[in-house]
Amino acid sequence: MIVRDHPSALQLYIVMQGSIVPRIIGKIVGIAFLTTAVVVIDTHVVRLPHISIAAMSIFGIALSLFLGFRNNAAYDRWWEARKLWGAMIADVRNLGRHMCIFVGNGADRAHILSWAVAFAHLHRGALRDVDVSAEITGWVGAETASDLLAHQNPADAALRSMADQIGSLTGQQAISGFGQMTISKTLSSLALAQAGCERIKSTPLPFVYSLLIRRTTYLYCWLLPFALIEPTGAFAPLLAAVVAYVFFGLQTVTNELELPFQNVHNGLPLDAMCRTIEISVSEALGQPAPKPLVPKDYVLT
Amino acid sequence: MIVRDHPSALQLYIVMQGSIVPRIIGKIVGIAFLTTAVVVIDTHVVRLPHISIAAMSIFGIALSLFLGFRNNAAYDRWWEARKLWGAMIADVRNLGRHMCIFVGNGADRAHILSWAVAFAHLHRGALRDVDVSAEITGWVGAETASDLLAHQNPADAALRSMADQIGSLTGQQAISGFGQMTISKTLSSLALAQAGCERIKSTPLPFVYSLLIRRTTYLYCWLLPFALIEPTGAFAPLLAAVVAYVFFGLQTVTNELELPFQNVHNGLPLDAMCRTIEISVSEALGQPAPKPLVPKDYVLT
Amino acid sequence: MIVRDHPSALQLYIVMQGSIVPRIIGKIVGIAFLTTAVVVIDTHVVRLPHISIAAMSIFGIALSLFLGFRNNAAYDRWWEARKLWGAMIADVRNLGRHMCIFVGNGADRAHILSWAVAFAHLHRGALRDVDVSAEITGWVGAETASDLLAHQNPADAALRSMADQIGSLTGQQAISGFGQMTISKTLSSLALAQAGCERIKSTPLPFVYSLLIRRTTYLYCWLLPFALIEPTGAFAPLLAAVVAYVFFGLQTVTNELELPFQNVHNGLPLDAMCRTIEISVSEALGQPAPKPLVPKDYVLT
Amino acid sequence: MIVRDHPSALQLYIVMQGSIVPRIIGKIVGIAFLTTAVVVIDTHVVRLPHISIAAMSIFGIALSLFLGFRNNAAYDRWWEARKLWGAMIADVRNLGRHMCIFVGNGADRAHILSWAVAFAHLHRGALRDVDVSAEITGWVGAETASDLLAHQNPADAALRSMADQIGSLTGQQAISGFGQMTISKTLSSLALAQAGCERIKSTPLPFVYSLLIRRTTYLYCWLLPFALIEPTGAFAPLLAAVVAYVFFGLQTVTNELELPFQNVHNGLPLDAMCRTIEISVSEALGQPAPKPLVPKDYVLT
Amino acid sequence: MIVRDHPSALQLYIVMQGSIVPRIIGKIVGIAFLTTAVVVIDTHVVRLPHISIAAMSIFGIALSLFLGFRNNAAYDRWWEARKLWGAMIADVRNLGRHMCIFVGNGADRAHILSWAVAFAHLHRGALRDVDVSAEITGWVGAETASDLLAHQNPADAALRSMADQIGSLTGQQAISGFGQMTISKTLSSLALAQAGCERIKSTPLPFVYSLLIRRTTYLYCWLLPFALIEPTGAFAPLLAAVVAYVFFGLQTVTNELELPFQNVHNGLPLDAMCRTIEISVSEALGQPAPKPLVPKDYVLT
Repeated sequence: MIVRDHPSALQLYIVMQGSIVPRIIGKIVGIAFLTTAVVVIDTHVVRLPHISIAAMSIFGIALSLFLGFRNNAAYDRWWEARKLWGAMIADVRNLGRHMCIFVGNGADRAHILSWAVAFAHLHRGALRDVDVSAEITGWVGAETASDLLAHQNPADAALRSMADQIGSLTGQQAISGFGQMTISKTLSSLALAQAGCERIKSTPLPFVYSLLIRRTTYLYCWLLPFALIEPTGAFAPLLAAVVAYVFFGLQTVTNELELPFQNVHNGLPLDAMCRTIEISVSEALGQPAPKPLVPKDYVLT
Repeated sequence: MIVRDHPSALQLYIVMQGSIVPRIIGKIVGIAFLTTAVVVIDTHVVRLPHISIAAMSIFGIALSLFLGFRNNAAYDRWWEARKLWGAMIADVRNLGRHMCIFVGNGADRAHILSWAVAFAHLHRGALRDVDVSAEITGWVGAETASDLLAHQNPADAALRSMADQIGSLTGQQAISGFGQMTISKTLSSLALAQAGCERIKSTPLPFVYSLLIRRTTYLYCWLLPFALIEPTGAFAPLLAAVVAYVFFGLQTVTNELELPFQNVHNGLPLDAMCRTIEISVSEALGQPAPKPLVPKDYVLT
Repeated sequence: MIVRDHPSALQLYIVMQGSIVPRIIGKIVGIAFLTTAVVVIDTHVVRLPHISIAAMSIFGIALSLFLGFRNNAAYDRWWEARKLWGAMIADVRNLGRHMCIFVGNGADRAHILSWAVAFAHLHRGALRDVDVSAEITGWVGAETASDLLAHQNPADAALRSMADQIGSLTGQQAISGFGQMTISKTLSSLALAQAGCERIKSTPLPFVYSLLIRRTTYLYCWLLPFALIEPTGAFAPLLAAVVAYVFFGLQTVTNELELPFQNVHNGLPLDAMCRTIEISVSEALGQPAPKPLVPKDYVLT
Repeated sequence: MIVRDHPSALQLYIVMQGSIVPRIIGKIVGIAFLTTAVVVIDTHVVRLPHISIAAMSIFGIALSLFLGFRNNAAYDRWWEARKLWGAMIADVRNLGRHMCIFVGNGADRAHILSWAVAFAHLHRGALRDVDVSAEITGWVGAETASDLLAHQNPADAALRSMADQIGSLTGQQAISGFGQMTISKTLSSLALAQAGCERIKSTPLPFVYSLLIRRTTYLYCWLLPFALIEPTGAFAPLLAAVVAYVFFGLQTVTNELELPFQNVHNGLPLDAMCRTIEISVSEALGQPAPKPLVPKDYVLT
Repeated sequence: MIVRDHPSALQLYIVMQGSIVPRIIGKIVGIAFLTTAVVVIDTHVVRLPHISIAAMSIFGIALSLFLGFRNNAAYDRWWEARKLWGAMIADVRNLGRHMCIFVGNGADRAHILSWAVAFAHLHRGALRDVDVSAEITGWVGAETASDLLAHQNPADAALRSMADQIGSLTGQQAISGFGQMTISKTLSSLALAQAGCERIKSTPLPFVYSLLIRRTTYLYCWLLPFALIEPTGAFAPLLAAVVAYVFFGLQTVTNELELPFQNVHNGLPLDAMCRTIEISVSEALGQPAPKPLVPKDYVLT
């Protein structure tokens, strides 16, 4: 995630970090060049067929609506993913309070909370396809870490182990029925957030939308020069470049937001949120808390 | 569900798997041909009546808005259906943890979880109108399978049987009131997701929208050639084909998303999600878990 | 509710069942005739004032947006109503399972479930303003039926009676506190769905929207001929008819979806959903279940 | 709230009750007169500067989008407010059932339910800034009424008193822990709905939107005559009046829906909903229920 | 938050408090001046390249849609933030009632409620990056205040302390399991609202949107003069200024709503809402309640 203040009007055009211009500059320049070529050929070589700007405007409105739809859907996925992680942060804190109320502030609580941190890291590992054994070893030990990672769904295995621990507290009469119920609800809430994130990861927007919208965007930008010859004169290449910037830019942003767990500039800062969980757990356990992650080059991973 | 990476710009126009072009190519070519005919006749034979592009643009904006509405509504149905299945996956996992906390890791837990897998398959069978007796026999036995399938609503019957088992645990004092309450809530949650899916299957978008929008799309595409004669010249057939591609394509996608449980390219991968449930249950029971389903020709069923 | 497959392209223009054309054909023909008259008079008799199509397009875009708003709001009401009924179906099934877990499969369960069916019918009766005494007599007896119907809110009275029965089970020590709590939650859930439906029935969209949008639609269609004279030539009457079809059609659909409980073509199939509840309850009680309702002439009531 | 059937096409233009025309007729006539003046001066006196209709159309589309946004936001507030009151009605009914299940049908239940009616009236009083002491005296007595009204937040004080009564039942062992929990949840649900209504009342749409959109609407309508001179001829004043009707009308509606608790034509019928609560409570207590409120001149307050 | 009545038509153009005009007047005047310069140079010095207004209109519609998207997203954040604070107000009141029902009206209740006020202030302090030690000292004492503020997340620490107090009541048998469960749920609800606010504060809209939309707005306004030369004549500078007002104005509002906890004109009135909580708690404790905050110069902080 890019973290920086709104740039001033002067900075606005030179900020490159966090911008999608570097990734689509080829397309923008390509369209501008094509437009220049079309205008030059049309004026000096041979008259090319023109398209009336009104015809393009029908096309443009339809394209705007469909790009807008895809953008909304992708943003909703991104924001829902952030909400699910926010709920997980709250649930881990709740878990700490529930253990305190129903079991007490002893070793069992520290144990369960350490597993909750492991759960968060394992979940992050599954969403980003990265190895998190280093991060969880400090919390649950190397052996348990490799046990957990041997499962197809290690985060789910962590939750199951937490339930086993609650189950064994039950056997020891160390927790009341009220405590079992409250804590199993909190675990269910974590599981629901986990399943929600898996859903977002495993079910992208229907592929056919991407095809339909990307194809149409290319077609639009390729036809645009023939529509701009007449009505914009010398501004034609500039206008074509601006339109290409808007449409390809929006499409590139949308591609990133659609899969919010990827480690890209506009992805969610899963590392930073796992750190937030570690801080909350450390403070809950009265241990020295690590520092929050800070952005590097304005990017929080 | 189509599962593949975003194609590069070069691949974009040759990807056919997952595209809706094959299904609407007839309409696209038809409109292009009609436009060519109209242009040729207008130029060389007899002047046909023209429609100003501005008049068509009013029509086009209205059509875009209504197509956009239908598309949004269909996508919402598709995504809600996916959410409901995701919630069911989480609920089955929760059920395993709740049995562990409140009943223990014995035969009763294995029994209930096997029934939960059967529930998922039976629900899938009802949504897709397919026979699932083979899939559930391994989990609940052949006799029970045919018993369940004899009901009008077999998935509901499976949930009822699970409740009966909890009821008999109650009689044996093997479960506390807290456990009864927690587990009956989880069963209710599964039932709510089931009823939600039945709602989406049994209540399509109001039929009249389909009529209104499809009729209007056809009318629009048939009138378009008369509007494109003047302002687009030699590009007219190409533009008409592109507009037909966008409007008919969106409509075809929408038809598939509207009924998300059908076994079509853009339907939900119910088989793969039932497999996910089988994996979760197998891991919860400490049994060897099956492999996740993989896409064939980029299609996950 | 209309239940039929998407018509093929050929059928599309002859399907009348489920179409709103029959109800607005007068307006469509009227506008087409008016346009013809305006064109003929303008061409052969006296030049009428023209309106530029661009001026109408501003008007048209505003109108599309506002029609789109009303359409969205009405569809949301319709879909929320369907969701509430779907939740009621799930809640009745839950009630059966909860009685089984907390009270057992005896006469008390049959009693409560019969009342739940009566509740559904009484609720349907209030929403549709129809008499349901015949349907509920079979479930709760003639005397109780007339007792219930004597209340201003018979469905609420049915829920209250169910609570009284749970209260008397409490007195007999036949139900635990857990059971009381779980079942009273399920009754509350039914009551919430009921109050939601009453809300939708008693609070239509603000009347002023209907006035504003309907008046504007008429004005738009009456001014349209003067805008179509020039830019569409011989197509003017056809285009005017198509625009009238889209705008009046959408408005008529919206009027029906706005009040989703009415017994009209696009209303919700309350009879069929009450039958679904009867089937679920019959299967839960081990009784022979009635058949689901089937559409007559593609209409499910 | 206006309650009347959709007017027929003939009635449509003469219905004044529930219309916003009377409130904006001055603006409409003003714009029409201005347009007439501009046309006359431009034709017969001195040529005024013209604005091309295309330039106005950019402006018009932006304005439509922003008016549409504000309209959506205001309607959402109105509908959310109605949902909150609907939930309160259900919660009061639930409270009656819960008292019956957990405490019994005696004087305590009657007492709590009377306070629930008082709560609804006090809440309405706070939302509408009206005095409700007359309405609640009949339910809780004059002394209690004036006690409650002495608080800054009388409705919250009523809920607190209800909790005190539950607390004293606890002291008398007249209610189980299950009952305490269920009933305190219902009270919390009432409090949540109350806080939601307070939120809607105390936090209007950001003031700056009103300024931005209203100023822009006026500017648009004042510039419109200069754009209509050319393209609409004799229709100019009529078209200007229609556009003014749509834009000012929508704005006036939005102003009312934004603050849904005010006692205006499009406000929510709080009096009628409090009566619904009184009816439910009376029927629950077996007392003769009052009649529902009926609209006067099609207006339900 | 600006609190004032809708201004009359006459006041509309002179209201400056709550308007964003002062902050964008430079840009508006700049664009108007640029337009004047372009028109003058084009007419009297040298013909500049023109852009057809139709080409700009495609651009304008796309820009409106994207500005509209960003505006919607920002408003949703602002309104969600307000909902979360509204839920917190209700939860603090619920906490008071729950303590009364499950623990009684003694010192423990006063203690917990004082901490709840401290929680609200600490949360506000974290959201606004302000020091709140003065506000909380009166409620929890100076020593506790500085203890709490030593944590990385002081509001979370306050909730943890409240859980500790509930835990110690458990040790003293002063609270039942039902009370533990109900109150720990209320604390969880506060924690969820807290995490929601932290999410909104720490996760702004993706930075790339701001860049994309702001850059495009500037480009649009700079190109506009070349499009307005022809079709608007003497009105060109006025129209350009109006368009700049709409687009820059909307962008400035959006920037404020995007971060709703900042102490700016359109930010949320966190001070006033903390005061509401203090009033509720004071009334619940039977103490004299402070006065609500009143707006200064129409601004509530």
